[in-house]
Amino acid sequence: MRRILIVNGPNLNLTGRREPEIYGTRTMDDIIADTRAAMDGSAEIDYFQSNSEGAIIDRLHAAGFGAVDGIVLNAGAYTHTSLAIADAIAAIATPVVEVHMSRVAAREPIRRQSLIGPVCRGTIAGFGPDVYRLACHAILALA
Amino acid sequence: MRRILIVNGPNLNLTGRREPEIYGTRTMDDIIADTRAAMDGSAEIDYFQSNSEGAIIDRLHAAGFGAVDGIVLNAGAYTHTSLAIADAIAAIATPVVEVHMSRVAAREPIRRQSLIGPVCRGTIAGFGPDVYRLACHAILALA
Amino acid sequence: MRRILIVNGPNLNLTGRREPEIYGTRTMDDIIADTRAAMDGSAEIDYFQSNSEGAIIDRLHAAGFGAVDGIVLNAGAYTHTSLAIADAIAAIATPVVEVHMSRVAAREPIRRQSLIGPVCRGTIAGFGPDVYRLACHAILALA
Amino acid sequence: MRRILIVNGPNLNLTGRREPEIYGTRTMDDIIADTRAAMDGSAEIDYFQSNSEGAIIDRLHAAGFGAVDGIVLNAGAYTHTSLAIADAIAAIATPVVEVHMSRVAAREPIRRQSLIGPVCRGTIAGFGPDVYRLACHAILALA
Amino acid sequence: MRRILIVNGPNLNLTGRREPEIYGTRTMDDIIADTRAAMDGSAEIDYFQSNSEGAIIDRLHAAGFGAVDGIVLNAGAYTHTSLAIADAIAAIATPVVEVHMSRVAAREPIRRQSLIGPVCRGTIAGFGPDVYRLACHAILALA
Amino acid sequence: MRRILIVNGPNLNLTGRREPEIYGTRTMDDIIADTRAAMDGSAEIDYFQSNSEGAIIDRLHAAGFGAVDGIVLNAGAYTHTSLAIADAIAAIATPVVEVHMSRVAAREPIRRQSLIGPVCRGTIAGFGPDVYRLACHAILALA
Amino acid sequence: MRRILIVNGPNLNLTGRREPEIYGTRTMDDIIADTRAAMDGSAEIDYFQSNSEGAIIDRLHAAGFGAVDGIVLNAGAYTHTSLAIADAIAAIATPVVEVHMSRVAAREPIRRQSLIGPVCRGTIAGFGPDVYRLACHAILALA
Amino acid sequence: MRRILIVNGPNLNLTGRREPEIYGTRTMDDIIADTRAAMDGSAEIDYFQSNSEGAIIDRLHAAGFGAVDGIVLNAGAYTHTSLAIADAIAAIATPVVEVHMSRVAAREPIRRQSLIGPVCRGTIAGFGPDVYRLACHAILALA
Amino acid sequence: MRRILIVNGPNLNLTGRREPEIYGTRTMDDIIADTRAAMDGSAEIDYFQSNSEGAIIDRLHAAGFGAVDGIVLNAGAYTHTSLAIADAIAAIATPVVEVHMSRVAAREPIRRQSLIGPVCRGTIAGFGPDVYRLACHAILALA
Amino acid sequence: MRRILIVNGPNLNLTGRREPEIYGTRTMDDIIADTRAAMDGSAEIDYFQSNSEGAIIDRLHAAGFGAVDGIVLNAGAYTHTSLAIADAIAAIATPVVEVHMSRVAAREPIRRQSLIGPVCRGTIAGFGPDVYRLACHAILALA
Amino acid sequence: MRRILIVNGPNLNLTGRREPEIYGTRTMDDIIADTRAAMDGSAEIDYFQSNSEGAIIDRLHAAGFGAVDGIVLNAGAYTHTSLAIADAIAAIATPVVEVHMSRVAAREPIRRQSLIGPVCRGTIAGFGPDVYRLACHAILALA
Amino acid sequence: MRRILIVNGPNLNLTGRREPEIYGTRTMDDIIADTRAAMDGSAEIDYFQSNSEGAIIDRLHAAGFGAVDGIVLNAGAYTHTSLAIADAIAAIATPVVEVHMSRVAAREPIRRQSLIGPVCRGTIAGFGPDVYRLACHAILALA
Repeated sequence: MRRILIVNGPNLNLTGRREPEIYGTRTMDDIIADTRAAMDGSAEIDYFQSNSEGAIIDRLHAAGFGAVDGIVLNAGAYTHTSLAIADAIAAIATPVVEVHMSRVAAREPIRRQSLIGPVCRGTIAGFGPDVYRLACHAILALA
Repeated sequence: MRRILIVNGPNLNLTGRREPEIYGTRTMDDIIADTRAAMDGSAEIDYFQSNSEGAIIDRLHAAGFGAVDGIVLNAGAYTHTSLAIADAIAAIATPVVEVHMSRVAAREPIRRQSLIGPVCRGTIAGFGPDVYRLACHAILALA
Repeated sequence: MRRILIVNGPNLNLTGRREPEIYGTRTMDDIIADTRAAMDGSAEIDYFQSNSEGAIIDRLHAAGFGAVDGIVLNAGAYTHTSLAIADAIAAIATPVVEVHMSRVAAREPIRRQSLIGPVCRGTIAGFGPDVYRLACHAILALA
Repeated sequence: MRRILIVNGPNLNLTGRREPEIYGTRTMDDIIADTRAAMDGSAEIDYFQSNSEGAIIDRLHAAGFGAVDGIVLNAGAYTHTSLAIADAIAAIATPVVEVHMSRVAAREPIRRQSLIGPVCRGTIAGFGPDVYRLACHAILALA
Repeated sequence: MRRILIVNGPNLNLTGRREPEIYGTRTMDDIIADTRAAMDGSAEIDYFQSNSEGAIIDRLHAAGFGAVDGIVLNAGAYTHTSLAIADAIAAIATPVVEVHMSRVAAREPIRRQSLIGPVCRGTIAGFGPDVYRLACHAILALA
Repeated sequence: MRRILIVNGPNLNLTGRREPEIYGTRTMDDIIADTRAAMDGSAEIDYFQSNSEGAIIDRLHAAGFGAVDGIVLNAGAYTHTSLAIADAIAAIATPVVEVHMSRVAAREPIRRQSLIGPVCRGTIAGFGPDVYRLACHAILALA
Repeated sequence: MRRILIVNGPNLNLTGRREPEIYGTRTMDDIIADTRAAMDGSAEIDYFQSNSEGAIIDRLHAAGFGAVDGIVLNAGAYTHTSLAIADAIAAIATPVVEVHMSRVAAREPIRRQSLIGPVCRGTIAGFGPDVYRLACHAILALA
Repeated sequence: MRRILIVNGPNLNLTGRREPEIYGTRTMDDIIADTRAAMDGSAEIDYFQSNSEGAIIDRLHAAGFGAVDGIVLNAGAYTHTSLAIADAIAAIATPVVEVHMSRVAAREPIRRQSLIGPVCRGTIAGFGPDVYRLACHAILALA
Repeated sequence: MRRILIVNGPNLNLTGRREPEIYGTRTMDDIIADTRAAMDGSAEIDYFQSNSEGAIIDRLHAAGFGAVDGIVLNAGAYTHTSLAIADAIAAIATPVVEVHMSRVAAREPIRRQSLIGPVCRGTIAGFGPDVYRLACHAILALA
Repeated sequence: MRRILIVNGPNLNLTGRREPEIYGTRTMDDIIADTRAAMDGSAEIDYFQSNSEGAIIDRLHAAGFGAVDGIVLNAGAYTHTSLAIADAIAAIATPVVEVHMSRVAAREPIRRQSLIGPVCRGTIAGFGPDVYRLACHAILALA
Repeated sequence: MRRILIVNGPNLNLTGRREPEIYGTRTMDDIIADTRAAMDGSAEIDYFQSNSEGAIIDRLHAAGFGAVDGIVLNAGAYTHTSLAIADAIAAIATPVVEVHMSRVAAREPIRRQSLIGPVCRGTIAGFGPDVYRLACHAILALA
Repeated sequence: MRRILIVNGPNLNLTGRREPEIYGTRTMDDIIADTRAAMDGSAEIDYFQSNSEGAIIDRLHAAGFGAVDGIVLNAGAYTHTSLAIADAIAAIATPVVEVHMSRVAAREPIRRQSLIGPVCRGTIAGFGPDVYRLACHAILALA
């Protein structure tokens, strides 16, 4: 069975409480449960959330070099400001898929630029909580 | 059964012949066949390709206003230069998902800006031919 | 009697169906009929619409060099991206008036820059379908 | 009978004396007289000119809130530098039409950006003195 | 007793009539009266409003060089376009506090840049009419 | 009695030791004590300082959703680089007031742009330690 | 004998009628005839012109992959706006030489940037109709 | 005897009181007296100062069209923000010389760009009060 | 004996494992040991690494105000995004030397701009692990 | 017989030794000999190389005003930085053709902008040493 | 008697031959002779011209540190590209006055920015050959 | 014994006389003597200085291709403007180390961008005359 780590960045712990018109009303616990269910036994899913850039980097390091088969990363606002997370992704050998629940392309200019995009294997954005499930499927399909 | 239209823009007819190190060696016929097979009977897939911006707009118009349930659009280079295709997407009521086989975020600056992104329901990029299948699944999951 | 050609660019064939809060609910057939009526016999009006940049250039060439007395051009999104249409306007001797039904100055930045404006005789924007009638009157008043 | 106010900004009092190759040789008195004649009794036209940004704002305030039915504003160079006039237009309830006698789109870059455009009902530019008459007709056609 | 001058720039005379969703419905007369009351005898408040950049500069000159103890300046749109008012503030010895009733940081880009900010003693923005009272208190606290 | 949280960002723990010509010589303990005294029993004041972006976000989350009545935030350098803190402010329902002791408008360009300003209720800058007291008064005045 | 395809883009069909002070008075028929004559039997020359971006891409595809030995491309205004034509050039194996009759470097800024230049084998600009002959000679000298 | 008008813009009435480290301690009355003395009977000098952009334009109009032989203009901060004054200079036939007492090239970026420079006959900057005398001599030397 | 602190920022703990073509294959333990050896008894070297911006600031504070004689800082990606670390360097009295193992000037644009450079005593970049030794020698040479 | 001067700028004396993957392995002596041979008696070719901007300007002056019939200029890096060489070209009456052996359009951004292009008669780039021969032929074809 | 050095940069040796519509038809020998005559015995004038940036720097060094009383520098195109000449001016103690015969403010953008302006005592531009005489007078008036 | 060439660019011959607050009071002769002494017999040091870009390129060519083991280059202002020197560095096989005595990162924006940095082996800046010694040591440590 494959092992996938989902990493969520700043403020995503408020999902379900925060700006529900953008992110929906379900909590991350609900979403991760749904995502696990959708894996149908084909993958085990770990989950990590932090508001700290450094803690996210630490977690990526721990997951790298073969510890998991793939990482789904919703870096939240750090997507647009953290070159350090981008460096962490480039440094570890594990494939990382960038996800966003909202349609970042339709939001303000700073959110249209991703510092981590260039070092990720792919990007999935705009389908709400479904992006976690789609990204896990994408990772499973990577040879 | 749902109906999905896949629209491919300029130069994608050369897929399998063109720059295989970026786009892979399979032809679009192969890819569409794989995508249809992966639908497993849950969706019927139409396919259209054109090198002409105007013909793509005409096709989007024909597919809009309920004619299909969703559109998967790989606008190729027009992604970055065609405000007219963006207007066509905004004008029709049908949900459109933007896809790119390559990791556009890792290519030259002009390819990191999408004019059509802000009017699409979501974006999937970087997984090679798999993006067509993932996008069809994303459309099926839209309520 | 003077002869005026009205040329509409991409997506304007959807007028009346598309984003009615911006462009109103009347179709182009209605609008052209109204414009013809308002000419009161002082001008004959031809009408052409295409979603293709090349077809619009072809039509401008055909109307140039004295074939009509003036051209009213609503280039839609090509207003902002087509240097080739601008070159066509500069190449033919016929006066061209740029029109927009919406208030382009109040929309997103890319719509505030017109590539064709510098080679047109004048611009009329923001009065909805009335811009066609006003532009025809402006052409008739050109010596 | 409708009441329209024409407001002219800086240096337009020199019309007929100043750079005649751009603005023509007729004075503003001639042009206003022609515009009044073209109204054919359907509208009464007031005229105001000032070289002072503050005086123009004062006059717009006085004309706002129902005092006139519409305002034709040729703000001259203040078109490109006065956010305060733009605020005045936004603050009063009266519709304002922006006009320019010259083809501003064909002049230097600073003249291609209008600060007042986004808050005006429409724009008419490039037909010489005729812009005043066309704008009055546009105002009369506004419901 | 200390003496404070409140200077309001363009369009602020319409406060209470203009865009009430941004500026509230109270008039400047009400607001100044409230501010005077809140001073509780600790300061005498003069009030000046003009739509003219030059008149505002003249008034700042008159208040400078010791004539008042501090100036509260809401320069309105001139905040963003008037280098001349900034020079006037730098030229006089009296401390000037910049105020804005609206949250300028949340409005369009041109309103996020203040030409006068660098020469003012401080800035207070976004609390509606309260900014006048807060600024007067800030001036009183300056040694 | 109302409850207000004061949050200080990076390097503000050095206040009184660091660059005294910009920030003054009093320590934050002194300043908070003064601010508490100035509340005169109308508000209870909590204080939090951290050099870590993530810890500040954690603290804002804890204070949100009704836990306190208002937050005074001096985000220090994170004002200009942290979109994540801005998202945290937008995510919680509690009003946040941005403060800066120095006149940020008069410092280098990067300090003239605030990422958090657009999501705060207001901004007070430039009056040294007094900004904490003024901001608390501003929060008390918010209905 | 080598086979060379000359492809002309938008408005070049008007050569000899359009802006003769920039492009000269000879028609493309004359110019192609001259170019053929100058080949002196060393190369066969095909000619294609279209105002449509899509048709040009179609023609490049047809000429690619060994169908001709080299392509001389005057993309006209599409030089500066068509990333799709650039992609077509990159996709086919045939060497393409970019030509311009006018001195594009001396014209307006948008004409100084070529999107197709980076994927062409070389560029020849500014010698009027002679650029076609020079480019054919350059192609013959390749490999 | 020639007639020269010296026009001073905003805040220059404070010369001698304002920022003496930049502009020196002599008043404009002193400077104009010195300049008149240096003319040695070869020119009569009129003097005008205003803080109002509109009043400066009015004065330039009055001096234009032959009323004086030349104008020395120190537009102060309006140098950098007033397109309307630039238009006034272009509109009148009288030669205008731009002067600045300070070395504008060594000050902040906004002061390094002159909107009026392109329409003036010449520029003299950086020699303190001497610029008025040098400019008068320059005007006398113009044929 | 002098005391020097070496501070390493994000991802530098992976040195020897991460992108060895850029950073070499030796671990930081090896490198620090080499650097200590090269000091030849003239300096004691402390070492600190963290992926957290806040922890780095905390460590700089602890080392400031005389606790060590100099700091060698390789801030990694924070070099380009952390104004807060720059403020920490400016706030403490201890001299800080910026180092980079790779040739940052030859990498992507964002890495060519250092936010911390302006507040450091000097910069050494591009010599691989040797930069730590060279920086220690530079600190010893500072009076 | 016509007389042509070939001028080579900085580092071109290293041709054949320097970066052979970009410029080829033949020396300039070889290339000039080939070019002379290709002239077939129709033109005499002078050759000049210097690494000094001033010496190149001196040589252009000497060749101007009829001394030679045309100049082929490979300004090397000065192409992108020397406005002085551009002025020299504009100052002399002799036609100058700009050449580059490499495909400058495909290199880094600074090499895509030519300061001398706007004042040259034409440009030939990307064909390796052949550009010298093509440029000589282009000069011979100029009337 | 005072000693003034006039330094002319690239292409100014062609004055009288080069672009006479911009620079006039008199040679530099004529102009220097006129300037010397206008000094009327109050100053001795040395003259130096070079097309080489390095030679100009050498000459400025030789004239610095008291060797002459002032320098009039027309750096030609180096005005806009030579930071090294600017450094030379800053390095020597002698006052330098920047002159331009043409109205640089009215020419292309690159000529509106002077790298040497910030380190010169003043600037005189636009009066043709008279700028040399005016600059000498300006130097004599410097204390 | 290794051989190192130190090359100094424009104005560095004035070291000790020029702006001593930035560059110190020691002359280059002193500094080179110190640097030679510090080499302790491990390297022979040649020294070259020129104010001419071309002469510096000539010297780099002569030192390249094995003539010396390494080059220490302080290009002065040419660091920021000379693409030609950058090309020379790239063209020769010898390693070049960029040095600056001042902290260029803390000076004006143009000095924060190095054109030669990307082609040098490393950079050392900000330690005054010590940079020459440190750079020689860095060269010796290069394998």
